[in-house]
Amino acid sequence: MAEPARHDAVELIRAKRDGRALTDDEIRWLIAAYTAGEVADEQMSALLMAVYFRGLAPAELRAWTAAMVGSGERLDLAAVGAPTVDKHSTGGVGDKVSLVLAPLVASCGAAVPQLSGRGLGHTGGTLDKLEAIPGWRAGLPAAEMIAVLRATGCVICAAGAGLAPADRKLYALRDVTGTVESIPLIASSIMSKKIAEGTAALVLDVKVGTGAFMTELPAARELAATMVSLGADAGVRTAALLTRMDVPLGRAVGNAVEVEEAVATLRGQGPPDLAEVTLALAAEMLALAGIEADPAAALADGRALDRYRSMIKAQGGDPDAPLPQARRAEPVTAGRAGWLWRLDARAVGVAAWRLGAGRARKEDPVSASAGVLCLAKPGERVEAGQPLLELRADDPSRFARARAALAGAIEIGPEPFAAAPLVIERVTA
Amino acid sequence: MAEPARHDAVELIRAKRDGRALTDDEIRWLIAAYTAGEVADEQMSALLMAVYFRGLAPAELRAWTAAMVGSGERLDLAAVGAPTVDKHSTGGVGDKVSLVLAPLVASCGAAVPQLSGRGLGHTGGTLDKLEAIPGWRAGLPAAEMIAVLRATGCVICAAGAGLAPADRKLYALRDVTGTVESIPLIASSIMSKKIAEGTAALVLDVKVGTGAFMTELPAARELAATMVSLGADAGVRTAALLTRMDVPLGRAVGNAVEVEEAVATLRGQGPPDLAEVTLALAAEMLALAGIEADPAAALADGRALDRYRSMIKAQGGDPDAPLPQARRAEPVTAGRAGWLWRLDARAVGVAAWRLGAGRARKEDPVSASAGVLCLAKPGERVEAGQPLLELRADDPSRFARARAALAGAIEIGPEPFAAAPLVIERVTA
Repeated sequence: MAEPARHDAVELIRAKRDGRALTDDEIRWLIAAYTAGEVADEQMSALLMAVYFRGLAPAELRAWTAAMVGSGERLDLAAVGAPTVDKHSTGGVGDKVSLVLAPLVASCGAAVPQLSGRGLGHTGGTLDKLEAIPGWRAGLPAAEMIAVLRATGCVICAAGAGLAPADRKLYALRDVTGTVESIPLIASSIMSKKIAEGTAALVLDVKVGTGAFMTELPAARELAATMVSLGADAGVRTAALLTRMDVPLGRAVGNAVEVEEAVATLRGQGPPDLAEVTLALAAEMLALAGIEADPAAALADGRALDRYRSMIKAQGGDPDAPLPQARRAEPVTAGRAGWLWRLDARAVGVAAWRLGAGRARKEDPVSASAGVLCLAKPGERVEAGQPLLELRADDPSRFARARAALAGAIEIGPEPFAAAPLVIERVTA
Repeated sequence: MAEPARHDAVELIRAKRDGRALTDDEIRWLIAAYTAGEVADEQMSALLMAVYFRGLAPAELRAWTAAMVGSGERLDLAAVGAPTVDKHSTGGVGDKVSLVLAPLVASCGAAVPQLSGRGLGHTGGTLDKLEAIPGWRAGLPAAEMIAVLRATGCVICAAGAGLAPADRKLYALRDVTGTVESIPLIASSIMSKKIAEGTAALVLDVKVGTGAFMTELPAARELAATMVSLGADAGVRTAALLTRMDVPLGRAVGNAVEVEEAVATLRGQGPPDLAEVTLALAAEMLALAGIEADPAAALADGRALDRYRSMIKAQGGDPDAPLPQARRAEPVTAGRAGWLWRLDARAVGVAAWRLGAGRARKEDPVSASAGVLCLAKPGERVEAGQPLLELRADDPSRFARARAALAGAIEIGPEPFAAAPLVIERVTA
């Protein structure tokens, strides 16, 4: 009942709660005041829940995203001297695409400034995977990040604290207040970081299915269209692919095991589904960068692998060092003969997480060597007793809970089965 | 994405957000963990906003209210030796009913254990009003409260910190997070305190109109029915009256001026609207207490006034001491002749607040002497230039903002006007 100041947090919460659109000026004040600690966490979380229920109109979302970008610095990548293009995935199980894609697209002439994250829950994080490589460093100051990008055409590193600090604070709050699952909040979080990163173009891999954040196509399509539009508004040429995530991508799920599989893919010996998604994303990135090149050829002739090795070395890693190996392995076997119909991505992701590959809280460490190998993939013939999965961990006490996560995750049917195409559709401005 | 513990705050927030009813056990844990500081403010505020949108089913609301009662002690008033019955008002402008009603009902043979509050915003608080009396103390330990109640049949004091501490914490949170305006949250807040107070019966004065918290009849009716049902569930005989609050009750709005008007009413010289509401509530209270008595006679013959004086003295006050008088007074005059059609309760409440009678933040002091006198009430004939209101304050700089609050609050029409009855309807279990 207190009289509002020009922008009073309680008045803005009530306005949003009651369905009134917030003005540009109100949103700018709100994000700045929250970042500065003048709006309290308990006020922002109530407002976020009101946004969950009421949504954000396009103009509100544009202002919200711009305010998050404006809460920190925006990198200037002009000095890189090549067209910049990045990729962001909404996260899936076995999604090691970035490790292949960034050097691949760099080897075709673009510069890929990939600021990436760590995993939380059942989906892994690109930085956690690369940290399985002895010596490799995720944290680079902005100047070093740009130097690596100039030298090798690609860099994968953690976002510095100066980029979209409002998003960092908001994301941590959403995580503990049940306000993660909101399309405008997800879209503004992703896009504010990518806009601040300074890339000229961006391809979004919006994953759909049991192993993805978005399990249903309509919501994934809405998220993709929202992000593409936010990119365009901020002057970043943006396109999205909706890709299927009902089954782990490739055969390896974990950290070191995914690095191994990425390197195999760079050698032209990777699993076909991983190559398919990677090449589709590479084609989108090169088109947005205005580069005519054949990414399949760059994979086949070793150019992409060379770039990968340069990038790893530039960030302190030894690409020839042996990767950590788990001390224990246990199989999960087929209960009957037939064709593998289903291998649930989420269940495999949770199993890998419980084996130690992922973290429950952001301060937890991860195990580099833990994970799951998918020895069979849907569509393949299997015999009774044949190993379908190999669970890996250093700590044998972890196997029981990992197995429990897999209950109901595997289905074997009496007939052959043809998997649906991985790329569902493109979303462009 | 973290795996839930048995009751994980984030899981409960998400459940409520998604429309799942919380179980008794979950609600008990939630309220206890919040009171203990294990559930963070930012989590509870997100949950409260989800409750704003999703509501609470009757079973959830029962459990929620019981958990708030259970967060502290519940007083035992058996030693009082008379049937206990209390009244709670949802708050209006000029609402000094408690000052008359508690001694009146006590003089008829009931015991009235009235734990009351302070004002915030445009509605005043009973304790603020009584504190205009030199020496009077609002804060009594439970034993002293019961002693006063035994000795005089009535007591009006602040609720001790041991009663419903969860409500105290939740109310402070709701106040700053835009989550006050939720019927289940309002109902559980009011009823948890009244149930913990130990009264056997309770009459609710649910005010409806521009000066009330509930401006529309359907919402007021829902709030009344919800509270009556919560009372019955907890073994407290409860009834409600819906009463009109479009015009200030009586002629005085402020602190000392309301005490003066209450005393005049106890002498049988009060304004008729105040007497009407007070007697209607007294009849309900006596009926619930099982006492046959004529409250109008108790007003007329001075018994109620005697009880009032005893109660004030028992709490350290001097009922004969002169009350603080404001140093300045300014009139608001009629712009034309006619009949007073409208005198907006909310505007008068805000004007009194701005003159110093109320507080914007709970730590603010109030002025005992500031306020507004309504020299004319709707239905009365007025002449051009006649004073309609008298504004009172010690600080002359306050008059301008008080006048601004009154813009559009007064309407003078060309014909007589008959006010609607004050008591709209009864709500019983």
